[in-house]
Amino acid sequence: MLSKAVIKYINSLQVKKYRNQHQAFVVEGAKSVLELLLSPNFELQHLFVTETFYKEHTAVLDKGFKYDIVTEQELVKAGTFATNNAALAVAGMRNLPPLQVTPKDLVIALDDIRDPGNLGTILRIADWYGIDTVICSEACADFYNPKVISATMGSFTRVKTYYLNLEAWLAEHADKYKVYGASLAGENLHNMKLKPEGIIVLGNEANGIRPEVATHINQLIKIPAFGKAESLNVATATAIIIDNFRRGDA
Amino acid sequence: MLSKAVIKYINSLQVKKYRNQHQAFVVEGAKSVLELLLSPNFELQHLFVTETFYKEHTAVLDKGFKYDIVTEQELVKAGTFATNNAALAVAGMRNLPPLQVTPKDLVIALDDIRDPGNLGTILRIADWYGIDTVICSEACADFYNPKVISATMGSFTRVKTYYLNLEAWLAEHADKYKVYGASLAGENLHNMKLKPEGIIVLGNEANGIRPEVATHINQLIKIPAFGKAESLNVATATAIIIDNFRRGDA
Repeated sequence: MLSKAVIKYINSLQVKKYRNQHQAFVVEGAKSVLELLLSPNFELQHLFVTETFYKEHTAVLDKGFKYDIVTEQELVKAGTFATNNAALAVAGMRNLPPLQVTPKDLVIALDDIRDPGNLGTILRIADWYGIDTVICSEACADFYNPKVISATMGSFTRVKTYYLNLEAWLAEHADKYKVYGASLAGENLHNMKLKPEGIIVLGNEANGIRPEVATHINQLIKIPAFGKAESLNVATATAIIIDNFRRGDA
Repeated sequence: MLSKAVIKYINSLQVKKYRNQHQAFVVEGAKSVLELLLSPNFELQHLFVTETFYKEHTAVLDKGFKYDIVTEQELVKAGTFATNNAALAVAGMRNLPPLQVTPKDLVIALDDIRDPGNLGTILRIADWYGIDTVICSEACADFYNPKVISATMGSFTRVKTYYLNLEAWLAEHADKYKVYGASLAGENLHNMKLKPEGIIVLGNEANGIRPEVATHINQLIKIPAFGKAESLNVATATAIIIDNFRRGDA
């Protein structure tokens, strides 16, 4: 059974301030919790599973994890999902190594991506395409927001996500690195010979890349339009752009 | 002011049964409402705008639209958005021409895409890439669901979306058409010479393409993976696939 105090603690972790205070976050759903358990990057604090999840994943759970069997109602009460017939975990935040990027790496830099679903989807896309470092401006959605974690579908365990002053960081790197920026005024991606190296900057959902960040971009790129939609969702655009960078690499 | 009866009517249109009964649906937010007003494909029944929206778009509104100025609180009460400082409209459903597809067309076929956000995002992607026809199996999310309309960002006014028995329809067309299906067991997209012609089938978020639909596919395709994510979101996958089909076309 989940005690009132534990439910209160887990609920508090929906708020960034309390996540930071406790250096902990919540992971919900079968796929995400399984990836968490198999990841060497996180320390498990609590693990609650339903009978159903326990029966399906006994082999994993009995590798030495400490867990409690609870009801679906308890999981829903503690977590943020409307339904969760599987599992909920609380883990300590990842201890990231210092950010290291070389001009040979392909890196995604996000300028004020506010929607947690977009950020999570972008991290999943990065993971699919083997990009292990994502840089976020300080106003981006919080990596440990439960909606971000959920949208990554487990990729939160792998993609290293750094928050920093993007403008200052780009200013330091723009002379030695290729810095691409997605913009409707850019060069048509389909006509470019792209190597999977450099920093790709994606901008805010409503306002695009901030001018103080755009000033450090040395190549604007655009996804060619064939119809009448005015724009694409930023996660969609990220996927298409990265796919174009990876084409030569198959 | 919005009367209680009108609020009740608009609220009822959140439910598919009542949308079908009234052959009407709700459009919310500045971008979507503006696209609706400029579209020849829909008949406007009600239009409610805030003072702010009215001031910004007087020129459009005074082209002969009948509208009422209301408060943001009223819009939120009537609609599905948590905030809406712009506009809300009720329109009659589109009168679609009979479905016509030739082997030279590029068409998207969706097999049981259940998430409204995914369906809306896919329609927006179709519109971006100039695909004007999307075919949905009967269990797909409803085109007129407010979450679908919202996620299309106005593309709902252009992309013709048909609901039909996908299995039966493909059975009729598979011999004369190239029918592609997205699958982790498919051929690597990056290595294929693709023409923007044919039917591209995308499957359900959890279960992929149903076997009875898959049997009509004559070319499986996959997006190559470079990292460790197990899958991509279906809207993300649709975008990448269509971009690959359109490459030669720039």
